[in-house]
Amino acid sequence: MSLLVVGSVAFDDVRTPFGEAKGVLGGSATYFSIAASFFTDVNLVAVVGDDFPDECVELFRDHRVNIEGLERRAGETFRWSGEYGFDLNATTLATHLNVFETFDPKIPESYRTCPYVFLANIDPVLQLRVLEQIEAPELVACDTMNFWIEGKPDELTDTLRHVDILAVNDSEARELGRQANIYQAAQAILAMGPSGLIIKRGEYGALMFNDGKVFAAPAYPLETVFDPTGAGDSFAGGFMGYLANVGNVTDDTIRQAIIMGSVMASFNVEAFSLDRLRGVTYEEIHDRFRAFRRLVHFEDLDPDDFVHFGLGS
Amino acid sequence: MSLLVVGSVAFDDVRTPFGEAKGVLGGSATYFSIAASFFTDVNLVAVVGDDFPDECVELFRDHRVNIEGLERRAGETFRWSGEYGFDLNATTLATHLNVFETFDPKIPESYRTCPYVFLANIDPVLQLRVLEQIEAPELVACDTMNFWIEGKPDELTDTLRHVDILAVNDSEARELGRQANIYQAAQAILAMGPSGLIIKRGEYGALMFNDGKVFAAPAYPLETVFDPTGAGDSFAGGFMGYLANVGNVTDDTIRQAIIMGSVMASFNVEAFSLDRLRGVTYEEIHDRFRAFRRLVHFEDLDPDDFVHFGLGS
Repeated sequence: MSLLVVGSVAFDDVRTPFGEAKGVLGGSATYFSIAASFFTDVNLVAVVGDDFPDECVELFRDHRVNIEGLERRAGETFRWSGEYGFDLNATTLATHLNVFETFDPKIPESYRTCPYVFLANIDPVLQLRVLEQIEAPELVACDTMNFWIEGKPDELTDTLRHVDILAVNDSEARELGRQANIYQAAQAILAMGPSGLIIKRGEYGALMFNDGKVFAAPAYPLETVFDPTGAGDSFAGGFMGYLANVGNVTDDTIRQAIIMGSVMASFNVEAFSLDRLRGVTYEEIHDRFRAFRRLVHFEDLDPDDFVHFGLGS
Repeated sequence: MSLLVVGSVAFDDVRTPFGEAKGVLGGSATYFSIAASFFTDVNLVAVVGDDFPDECVELFRDHRVNIEGLERRAGETFRWSGEYGFDLNATTLATHLNVFETFDPKIPESYRTCPYVFLANIDPVLQLRVLEQIEAPELVACDTMNFWIEGKPDELTDTLRHVDILAVNDSEARELGRQANIYQAAQAILAMGPSGLIIKRGEYGALMFNDGKVFAAPAYPLETVFDPTGAGDSFAGGFMGYLANVGNVTDDTIRQAIIMGSVMASFNVEAFSLDRLRGVTYEEIHDRFRAFRRLVHFEDLDPDDFVHFGLGS
């Protein structure tokens, strides 16, 4: 199954406790599409300026990402600069939207029957406009953020009616669902339209609510977390890419997809930009998937070992 | 296997977004011993004032907790008052140590051969003094906090040399291990003596590091978290109680014990004080243990479903 992503392509200046990188390739659609490219055909929709160099285009080509929908406009590419402390929380130092400010995603004819769609974190009005250009998608997932939850709540509500799976972080879920309790916030969000909700919790992993069920996935406790930029988008890329690969969406495949998203995010944070993610091998992907299985595995209670102690019966 | 716990018995004034409770029974050794009492014989060492009423003693008796080591002294029982915001983080409003200020735990003769020992969060000097009174324990676990990590680092280091498993929270682990990265902090702590380290992460669950392995357990996403007081101590009680019940400490039983700790903590936070925990049934314990299994379960990759897409090989 092919996969469509609409989002940003950007240049980032990033400083972490372990070093810094200037003007490196980033953006939600970039991380998403490279992560997803290991699993399926990816069709990219984004905008860049006339400063966007061929070597960056090459990265997409090497990963067989379809860039027919990568619009090139006069002006500069979106630039973000940010800094991470030892707690790995980001502080945005500067955001220059540049050509991204007037981004009006046009979906190429050849993308319009794409069955799997991911709307990265952009204006919910644009997210809905993208969906209007697509014919009967099978699975639509989207990301959003506090900026839109607070600034365009009605537009976001409209968009969510057409979305199957929403991915947000803890605080966004609490704000959108208007509940401090994460379980109750999730139920409130599911009542808005999506049948599935992913709550991204950074170094604590992710929760998935769907169909009355909950799935909890840890993040992999890595020896080195070098640069968290793009973790959420490479998670989404692994998640959607895996579902498109197996081509069916059940509770079982959704759970595996959450783990595959966690696998791709765990590689991504090991280096700046896409330096680690781009060169990952299938052997590494399989190994880390299995490492996640060992990480959470525990045996059921054995009635021969565990005996009731006579209380609480 | 019988279990010894040394810690506090207290009266708490607690305010949460959902209500308040005044002068209710609390304290680390209380939560620990009631949680553990479902699994094994518990021997309690703590101190209370002459204000400690018979009905509180009855709770221990009902749960067959041995209170020979519950010292009663002239003066008032330890009192803590705190408040939880919507984020469920505690703000301490007042701490009156009272008789606990000069607590000098004396281990009754009949407790001294107890094979499983839990040292709740008290002065590391007292923790070590407790261990000196015990004959060849099989498993010693302990808790500590920033106050001792900062205030008595050398004494804490001495104590840790005699401890098998340390349980602390995220920020305590980072401070004690002097590393921002939690994996690296864990390795630094394990180099201080303990063979196992539990990192308690509240609503995000727990991590266990032991013998080169890592185990990640989620917290149960509860519909109602009413009062987080005692969650860490009821976790420890379920953990140590389970290990004492099955009577052997392996990677498998440690993982089950972490889940059993999470089960008991999840019940405890559903009501004020010990109101929920004290009346839990074995059926509820088994059901929630199984709910944890469903919460984290995912299938392995199926080579017939998941196909390599030609990259990354």
